[in-house]
Amino acid sequence: MTRLSPGATIGVLGGGQLARMMAQAGARLGLKTHVFSPVADDPAFDVCAARTQADFLDEAALAAFAEAVDVVTYEFENVPARTAEVLEAHRPVRPNPRVLALTQDRLVEKQFIRGLGLSTAEFADVRDPQTLADAVAALGRPSILKTRRFGYDGKGQARIADGGDLAQTFAALDGAPCILEGFVPFTKEISIVAARGIDGEFRAYDVCENVHEHHILATTTAPAAISAATAAAAVEATRRIAEAAEYVGVIAVEMFVVRKDETEELVINEIAPRVHNSGHWTLDGAETSQFEQHMRAVAGWPLGSTQRHGVSVTMRNLIGHDADRWPQLLSEDGTCLHLYGKKETRDGRKMGHVTRIQR
Amino acid sequence: MTRLSPGATIGVLGGGQLARMMAQAGARLGLKTHVFSPVADDPAFDVCAARTQADFLDEAALAAFAEAVDVVTYEFENVPARTAEVLEAHRPVRPNPRVLALTQDRLVEKQFIRGLGLSTAEFADVRDPQTLADAVAALGRPSILKTRRFGYDGKGQARIADGGDLAQTFAALDGAPCILEGFVPFTKEISIVAARGIDGEFRAYDVCENVHEHHILATTTAPAAISAATAAAAVEATRRIAEAAEYVGVIAVEMFVVRKDETEELVINEIAPRVHNSGHWTLDGAETSQFEQHMRAVAGWPLGSTQRHGVSVTMRNLIGHDADRWPQLLSEDGTCLHLYGKKETRDGRKMGHVTRIQR
Repeated sequence: MTRLSPGATIGVLGGGQLARMMAQAGARLGLKTHVFSPVADDPAFDVCAARTQADFLDEAALAAFAEAVDVVTYEFENVPARTAEVLEAHRPVRPNPRVLALTQDRLVEKQFIRGLGLSTAEFADVRDPQTLADAVAALGRPSILKTRRFGYDGKGQARIADGGDLAQTFAALDGAPCILEGFVPFTKEISIVAARGIDGEFRAYDVCENVHEHHILATTTAPAAISAATAAAAVEATRRIAEAAEYVGVIAVEMFVVRKDETEELVINEIAPRVHNSGHWTLDGAETSQFEQHMRAVAGWPLGSTQRHGVSVTMRNLIGHDADRWPQLLSEDGTCLHLYGKKETRDGRKMGHVTRIQR
Repeated sequence: MTRLSPGATIGVLGGGQLARMMAQAGARLGLKTHVFSPVADDPAFDVCAARTQADFLDEAALAAFAEAVDVVTYEFENVPARTAEVLEAHRPVRPNPRVLALTQDRLVEKQFIRGLGLSTAEFADVRDPQTLADAVAALGRPSILKTRRFGYDGKGQARIADGGDLAQTFAALDGAPCILEGFVPFTKEISIVAARGIDGEFRAYDVCENVHEHHILATTTAPAAISAATAAAAVEATRRIAEAAEYVGVIAVEMFVVRKDETEELVINEIAPRVHNSGHWTLDGAETSQFEQHMRAVAGWPLGSTQRHGVSVTMRNLIGHDADRWPQLLSEDGTCLHLYGKKETRDGRKMGHVTRIQR
């Protein structure tokens, strides 16, 4: 079963805002969504046709979930390998779970990217204080120590600056297997959000220019203010990654732009095998949103147009109590407000976002 | 409680595509929807946070539903008076149920419109074959006999042409109380979709030009090809209707444009106290969709911008097996496909719609 029909059910692992927006996009196209999440109050449970609240390692629940859906996808890359394995025995999982193995481990991910002839930061495997010392000697300071697994939004990271105690830094990350990344003197952070269809069709949105604050995405502006050649190279790098991974669905690739003399060079930072925060602007600002695009790809349907509306689009995340400004944001003409229906407002928690289109 | 907060629950009576699209629009703004419908497979059940499947006259179910929500709205005007009465005892019902009484009866509706100094077709009350004969003598042929209540999409109507047997025609409508409407030699059918907020704020979308086929809306194009003066008059008529009814929510007013010599005259045909098929283009073609606008108004929130995107927008309904063309429609760049998730495709049933924006 490669191409689903309207009325089919897409199973989504995870119940956060990404799953929520996927479910909403699918519903517009007549697709049902069945959300699987361990968290009772998860936002996606409010907008889906069916729900399973269970642990990701509850194999009976996973099997029943898989039997109830036509295809499985996910909103986050830290799906346990065993979870994917159980599901794959019943139904297609898209993107394919090999992508999970690739993106769950920063070391494996960087080796994969380098294997495609693309640039990454300099990096070294760190297993203990001694390999850390060796790595710092080789890569210099400043550099960044990151756990190989389970990092997001700046969590599981430590900056190695002058004079810091290496053994202490390593211990602060719980002695987990790490990777040391060399400093990248970037001028811009960009990302490509793109999709690959079941037939290999590939479509990318305009390059996104991202600004982070406190390690969390603050704003995305599309298109990025970079040269046409750099934009084309960024899309091409993403296409190669998607093809090498036999990817189906929306993929996001975060990159640094480094200015060398008069030219721009690209350094690949991270691959997200899912819809991505830097693609939220497409909900209001492109002919097909990244969420619809993902559901199309996962359903085996043709990809939609990635054409941007207007001259440029800016998306701003509403983090924590930023979202308390909703009455004011609602009353601004031309501002599109998205709230994720999260029960509790917490500092650093993504509560919603707003989009503004420059026409 | 006039202004709800995000996380509040809006109760919707009815579970069809209008309720479905309201629920989706509300969710984008962090509002939960609780759908009340007697029909198990209704499309809105797939996208809402809570569900009640019960009869509209099940008073215990209505009371429990009302207690579970913060405000009640509806997707159709034929809500029984008793249903509204039970709900109003517990929670605000918006638009207010007096509007239901007004729009459920074609005779009362026309008298209300005339009372505002606005034009309608000539009409006469028909209670039996004799009053029908008198009415036809007064209004002439062709004219249209309509049941006062429960008509939609051409149902409950009969054309009075030359030579037809009046008693037979009356009997064919089951002897129900009727209204005879004089023939209106219109050149265009238009509608105004607008909203009135809880503070009396009023905002209208561009005038919609509608084409019906077999008594069902086939296409809407915005803006309508009418003079600026006629467009302004149409908006003003709608504003007066909304104000007179102390309306809160989205309202649609269907009108005929009649060309007299060099001028255009407006004849009000029908008031729909709800989101309307001729406003579906706003989902893709306006800064705020009619569904979001309705949820804003019902939540006591500020209304959103009704600004149109692009040069013009066309919406086409997918009726019955029209929707079987979904694979082709999906592959057309610039075509926005909406499918309503209805289980069974039937002739004359609205299965979805597509929007195209001329930029």
